[in-house]
Amino acid sequence: MLFMVRMDVHVPHELDPAKFDALKATEKARAEDLQRSGKWRHLWRIAGQYANISIFDVADAGELHELMISLPLFPYMTTEVTALCRHPSAISAD
Amino acid sequence: MLFMVRMDVHVPHELDPAKFDALKATEKARAEDLQRSGKWRHLWRIAGQYANISIFDVADAGELHELMISLPLFPYMTTEVTALCRHPSAISAD
Amino acid sequence: MLFMVRMDVHVPHELDPAKFDALKATEKARAEDLQRSGKWRHLWRIAGQYANISIFDVADAGELHELMISLPLFPYMTTEVTALCRHPSAISAD
Amino acid sequence: MLFMVRMDVHVPHELDPAKFDALKATEKARAEDLQRSGKWRHLWRIAGQYANISIFDVADAGELHELMISLPLFPYMTTEVTALCRHPSAISAD
Amino acid sequence: MLFMVRMDVHVPHELDPAKFDALKATEKARAEDLQRSGKWRHLWRIAGQYANISIFDVADAGELHELMISLPLFPYMTTEVTALCRHPSAISAD
Amino acid sequence: MLFMVRMDVHVPHELDPAKFDALKATEKARAEDLQRSGKWRHLWRIAGQYANISIFDVADAGELHELMISLPLFPYMTTEVTALCRHPSAISAD
Amino acid sequence: MLFMVRMDVHVPHELDPAKFDALKATEKARAEDLQRSGKWRHLWRIAGQYANISIFDVADAGELHELMISLPLFPYMTTEVTALCRHPSAISAD
Amino acid sequence: MLFMVRMDVHVPHELDPAKFDALKATEKARAEDLQRSGKWRHLWRIAGQYANISIFDVADAGELHELMISLPLFPYMTTEVTALCRHPSAISAD
Amino acid sequence: MLFMVRMDVHVPHELDPAKFDALKATEKARAEDLQRSGKWRHLWRIAGQYANISIFDVADAGELHELMISLPLFPYMTTEVTALCRHPSAISAD
Amino acid sequence: MLFMVRMDVHVPHELDPAKFDALKATEKARAEDLQRSGKWRHLWRIAGQYANISIFDVADAGELHELMISLPLFPYMTTEVTALCRHPSAISAD
Repeated sequence: MLFMVRMDVHVPHELDPAKFDALKATEKARAEDLQRSGKWRHLWRIAGQYANISIFDVADAGELHELMISLPLFPYMTTEVTALCRHPSAISAD
Repeated sequence: MLFMVRMDVHVPHELDPAKFDALKATEKARAEDLQRSGKWRHLWRIAGQYANISIFDVADAGELHELMISLPLFPYMTTEVTALCRHPSAISAD
Repeated sequence: MLFMVRMDVHVPHELDPAKFDALKATEKARAEDLQRSGKWRHLWRIAGQYANISIFDVADAGELHELMISLPLFPYMTTEVTALCRHPSAISAD
Repeated sequence: MLFMVRMDVHVPHELDPAKFDALKATEKARAEDLQRSGKWRHLWRIAGQYANISIFDVADAGELHELMISLPLFPYMTTEVTALCRHPSAISAD
Repeated sequence: MLFMVRMDVHVPHELDPAKFDALKATEKARAEDLQRSGKWRHLWRIAGQYANISIFDVADAGELHELMISLPLFPYMTTEVTALCRHPSAISAD
Repeated sequence: MLFMVRMDVHVPHELDPAKFDALKATEKARAEDLQRSGKWRHLWRIAGQYANISIFDVADAGELHELMISLPLFPYMTTEVTALCRHPSAISAD
Repeated sequence: MLFMVRMDVHVPHELDPAKFDALKATEKARAEDLQRSGKWRHLWRIAGQYANISIFDVADAGELHELMISLPLFPYMTTEVTALCRHPSAISAD
Repeated sequence: MLFMVRMDVHVPHELDPAKFDALKATEKARAEDLQRSGKWRHLWRIAGQYANISIFDVADAGELHELMISLPLFPYMTTEVTALCRHPSAISAD
Repeated sequence: MLFMVRMDVHVPHELDPAKFDALKATEKARAEDLQRSGKWRHLWRIAGQYANISIFDVADAGELHELMISLPLFPYMTTEVTALCRHPSAISAD
Repeated sequence: MLFMVRMDVHVPHELDPAKFDALKATEKARAEDLQRSGKWRHLWRIAGQYANISIFDVADAGELHELMISLPLFPYMTTEVTALCRHPSAISAD
C-alpha cells in the first residue's frame, strides 16, 4: 500500500552542530537502507526548503508508523501523511 | 525536471451529467497519452477524495503549464504545484 | 486496516428536496449495509453539524476509496481521511 | 456521552530524556487504567505522527476535562475536542 | 451541560425574500421558545455580522443536536460547537 | 457593553513551577474579584484545553483592555475578542 | 468608542447590473451621511481590492451593528470587526 | 513605487464562453498597453494555475487601484497586494 | 501615501524585564516623535491584546520600511501591512 | 527558468548579535554575487517586514535549491517557492 509523506525538518538553533551532523549521517544511512528494501520507493527534495516528499510502499499504516519513528530526525520533523490508491486513469499498477 | 501537482476536482452540481461524462472520458484518454509519453510519470488517487497526486517530468515550468491547461477538467480543478529536485539521500537519479 | 474519515455534507440549496430525500434514504441503506458487513465500524454524528466521524476497517486505501465513492451523498461531501494504527498504550488489538 | 479528542504531543528538545521517559511510562499506565474503566473507549495512533485519536465515554464535559488534565503528558499536548452523538444511520446504540 | 455555539448565517442571494422572511419569523419564535425553556440560555448578536454566540444548557450532545437541526435557518448556517465545563476560578455553579 | 474573550494559556516549560503556582493563585483571586464586581460576568473552562470562554460587561473597550492586562497570566495568553450586542430574538435585555 | 471594520464586497455575477448600480448609489449616499454625522470617521479603499478599512465612532457595539446592517451592500459583504481603545503611546485622545 | 500583485482568476462556469473570450481579448490588450507604458513592469504566469504574479511601478496606491479596477477580468479575480521597496543588498535601483 | 499596519508584539519570556522596560520607554518616545511629525497619523490599541492598529502617512513604501525598522520593538513584532488609497465614497481627502 | 521565492527571516532572540552581524554581512556579499551572475534577477524588500521577494533565473529546481542552501541565513528562513513561466499576455520574453 502506498502513502505519500511530506516531511519538514526543523532544526533547533541551540542543537550542537556535531550532534546534528551525526543524526543526519545516521538518517542518510537509514533512508538508503529503506530505499534499497523497496519500502521507501521515492524520495525527493522540495526545492528551496528543508523538506521532502516521499512515497512509501508498506503493508499497512502500522508498518508506515514503525518506519517513520525509526528515522533519527523524526523528533525534529512535522509530517503530513496521505493514503494513496490506484487511479482509474493510471496506465500501470503503479 | 520534476513537479508534484495535487489536483482537486470540483464538479458543479448543475453541470449536465452527459457533458461531464464526456469530459471525463477525454480527460482519461489525455492522461493515458501523457503517461505513455513519460511526461506524466505517476498518477495516484488520494483515497476518499476526488483528487490526485501526480508527478510530472517536463522540460520546465512552461511545459508543465501547457500540459495542465490541456486537460479537459482543468477548469474544474484547484491545483497545488511543488517543484522537486534530487534529494542528497536518494539512491537513484530518479 | 483502520481509517478515520470526517464527512461534511453540503446540500446545494437549489437541489430538489424530493431528490435529496431519495439520496438520503439510499445513503442510509448503504451505510447500514456497510456497518453490518463490519467495514464501516463506527458512525457518529458531530453534534450541531451536518457532518460525521466514521471509522472504517478495510483491506487497504483502495477498498476505502471504492467504499467512499459508492456513497450516494459522496458528490455533496468534503472529506478528511486519517490513517490509523495500533497505539502502544492501547489495551486491545481493536 | 462520547467525545473525540485528537492529541498532538510536542516534546521540547531541551527536556531531560530520563524525565520524559518517566512521564511516558506514567502516561501509559494512566491510559491503560482509563481504558480498563471504560472511559477511554478507543485509542488509536495517527500513522506517521506523534499524535492520537481517542474516543472518551464520560458523564459530561466536566469529567472529560478532569480526565484530560490528569494525563502526565497534558502539558505537552495540543488538543482538539469534538462532541459526538448518535447518527440516525448508525445500526447500534454505539 | 453547557455548549457554546457560534452560528454564521449565509443567505443565498437567489432565495425568495418572502420565503426567507417567513423562515426568520419561524426561527425567532423557535429561539424564543427555547430560551423560555431554559435550554438556550444566552443568545448574543456578534456586532457587525449576521452571526450569533449562543450558550445552550442541555442534557448532552444528542439533545444539542436535535435542538440545532430543529432551527429553520439551520440549513443556511455554518456552526462551531465548543463543550464547556466549570472553571476552577468561577465563583458560581453557573 | 458585552465582550466575549477566549483566552488560551501557554505555559513555557522552563518556567519555575513555584513561580507559576504563585501566578495562578493571584490570577484566581483577581478573577474572583472581577466576577464579584459584575464585570467578569461568565467564566467557563473549554473542556480538554487550558483555555476559557469569558463574557465581560464593561463600559467600553478601554475598560476591557485595562482589565485584561491586569491579569497576572496575561503575558502567557493568546486572546480572541468579540464585541457582542443584543440579538433581536433574545427574550431578555441580558 | 472606536471600532475598525474591514468590509470585503462580493458581487454575485448573476446580479442584475442595474440593480447593483442602484445599490451602490444608495450605499454611497448612506456612507456620506454617516461620515457627515461623525459616526463613520474614516473610510479608506484597500488598494487593488473591492474592500475597505473603516473606523467607526459609536456609542457601543449595538450602535455599530445597527449602522452596519443599514448599509445596502451589507448582504454582499464579509466583515471583520476589531474593538479599539486608546494606546498608551498615542499623543492625542483621538 | 513597486507593488507585487498576485491575481487568481475564477471563471464562473455559467458564464457565456463567447462573452468570456471577449473579456480575455480586451484584458490582453489592456495588459499589453500597461506593459508598454512601463506601469505593469513584469507579468508572469504561475505554472499550473489560472493565476499570475505581477510587478507594478506606479506613483502610489491610488494609481495601482485605478489600474487594477480598469482590468476587464477584475470582477473575476481575487488579489493579494504587497508593497515593495529597495532591499539593502540589491545591486541596482531596480 | 497611507498604509495601515497591524503590529503584534511577542515578548520572549526569558527577556530581562529591565531591558524590556528600557525598550518600551524608547519605543514610546519614538512613537510620540513620529506622531508629532505627522508620519504616524493614528495609533490605536487593539482591546485585549498586546497589539496595535496604526495608520502611517509616508512618501512611499521605502519610507514606511525605514520607519518600521527604526522602532526598538520591531525585532519582537509580527506585522501586517495594507496599502490604502482614497475611497470613492469618502467625503474628505483624508 | 524563473522561480519566485518569498523569504521570511526569523532571528532567534538568543543569537549572539556579533555572530548575526557576521552572518548578515556574508549573506549580503553572497546575494550581490548571485545578482551579478544573473541568477538572482530581482531582490525586493517587503515593506515593514524582515522578508523579501526574489526572482531567480536558474537552469532548474536543483540549481535553485543549491543556491538557496548556500545562503548563510537559510537556517533562519521560512521560504515559499513558486514556479513561473511566460504569460500569454506578456510583451517580452521575460
